[in-house]
Amino acid sequence: MTWRYALIIDPVATDVRGTDHAATFRVVDPSAPALSIGELSTQRGDGIFESIGVVDGHAQEVGPHLERLAHSAALCDLPAPNLDQWRDAVAVVASQCPPGECVIKLILSRGIEHGPTPTAWVTAAVAPDNTAVRERGLRVVTLDRGFDSGAPVRAPWLLLGAKTLSYAVNMAAIREARRRGADDALFVTTDGVVLEGPTSSVILRFGDRYITPEPGAGILHGTTQMSLFAHLRDLGHDAAYETVHTDRLGEADAAWLVSSVRLAAPVAAFDDVSLAVDADVTASLNAYLLRPRD
Amino acid sequence: MTWRYALIIDPVATDVRGTDHAATFRVVDPSAPALSIGELSTQRGDGIFESIGVVDGHAQEVGPHLERLAHSAALCDLPAPNLDQWRDAVAVVASQCPPGECVIKLILSRGIEHGPTPTAWVTAAVAPDNTAVRERGLRVVTLDRGFDSGAPVRAPWLLLGAKTLSYAVNMAAIREARRRGADDALFVTTDGVVLEGPTSSVILRFGDRYITPEPGAGILHGTTQMSLFAHLRDLGHDAAYETVHTDRLGEADAAWLVSSVRLAAPVAAFDDVSLAVDADVTASLNAYLLRPRD
Repeated sequence: MTWRYALIIDPVATDVRGTDHAATFRVVDPSAPALSIGELSTQRGDGIFESIGVVDGHAQEVGPHLERLAHSAALCDLPAPNLDQWRDAVAVVASQCPPGECVIKLILSRGIEHGPTPTAWVTAAVAPDNTAVRERGLRVVTLDRGFDSGAPVRAPWLLLGAKTLSYAVNMAAIREARRRGADDALFVTTDGVVLEGPTSSVILRFGDRYITPEPGAGILHGTTQMSLFAHLRDLGHDAAYETVHTDRLGEADAAWLVSSVRLAAPVAAFDDVSLAVDADVTASLNAYLLRPRD
Repeated sequence: MTWRYALIIDPVATDVRGTDHAATFRVVDPSAPALSIGELSTQRGDGIFESIGVVDGHAQEVGPHLERLAHSAALCDLPAPNLDQWRDAVAVVASQCPPGECVIKLILSRGIEHGPTPTAWVTAAVAPDNTAVRERGLRVVTLDRGFDSGAPVRAPWLLLGAKTLSYAVNMAAIREARRRGADDALFVTTDGVVLEGPTSSVILRFGDRYITPEPGAGILHGTTQMSLFAHLRDLGHDAAYETVHTDRLGEADAAWLVSSVRLAAPVAAFDDVSLAVDADVTASLNAYLLRPRD
């Protein structure tokens, strides 16, 4: 049985400073019943989450993940999370993680139907072995995300910048990619603007220039992408946010899908167009991502 | 404390004919822990559901609800539900319902992460008192659903005809409607085609003709709408599926948002255009919907 761990935060969103947050954490058996059937997360995907990579007990980029949790909460009209409480919970869970790579998930649900407060819990598990995924290239298919590039600003109720628990479409897109013989998907708008993968950000390299789609274009602002951009700039590279049209995908000199647990996975093809996998740069990016980062 | 009831179906999707399905039902306390934190319904809204109205212990339109559950399962690549098993579960739960109106929910989740089988449960609760909602008119705002009318056929991975647990956008749309001082929302496509409410179908009356948007246009095929159309045709009315453009909304002689629990709620306004509430027809429709139906 693979190692897993879970704790429930109760109560959440308490604003009291100096509270002994540990007293609000209750360790639960990950495989035993812990949530009631009235949970809105189960009935309506009504809540938000974050996935944080852990390397040898160090939770990576906790600050940016917590900032995004707060941003998602605001977009979804959830009470502002008490970030100190969440940070303490992550520290407790990370301290339990075995050596090697793990994943911590933060979940903030709207709570019990008609209940007074949200429900929150944090889980940890050993990460799948992504060694091969970080070396061999992914075959990626572009999939229409249904909306045009104006939708995120025009219709904020579509929650396009929030990391909600309503991930059924993201999961369906990955199944569609597999059905087409590919490994993963890349969402694009109806007007041909590149968005993100179902569980990743995309980074493209043109010459010595690294680009990624503008945050705010209906995508999440990727924590791993942000960290890599800071790293690339430290190394003297140009790394920029740009609107990327689909016809530029095949012209990239290299590309990666990046996320908190899989890290940087090189792209070997977008649809029918092959891309070179830059093994050296990929190895260097993953070496950086595997070092402790805050 | 309002009455609630719940049972878990375990195992689900067993194909064995003549199985004693009752042996697969386990009654659980609705407010006690019953689901593990590894449930994909909680983490990704990855599953499907149905809400069934119950009147004096009679579950309404169980057949059409089960057919739609099977349709949603197919769209989401979930194992085909064993409809006999679900029907028996609904019967058990309905037999526990107190007199008056209740709601039964069927939930089929993809199950535990990396687990072998889906998770399924059925809940029941006393329905909210919808008497007033069925008489006074709802103020309804139209909200852009983000996609155009071609998206459902072009991009089936958007799961637009499936009743999935990923309902965060539906809930956000209702909050947006309330923020605008309205009672409910009506989704429309970017090219101005009327879809459905976040938790309802829309029926419009022009003269003696009742129309509703085409199923397959990125909406659910409403069980209450179907039942009402059969009833209206029995009464000699014309009831038809049509593509409805938003500019026709204000020209309707009457309109209703219809759903399994709220039943037929008359519309008093679409955006800034007032509609007459036809109290007699509305009362007649709801009298029909409150009679036992199979």
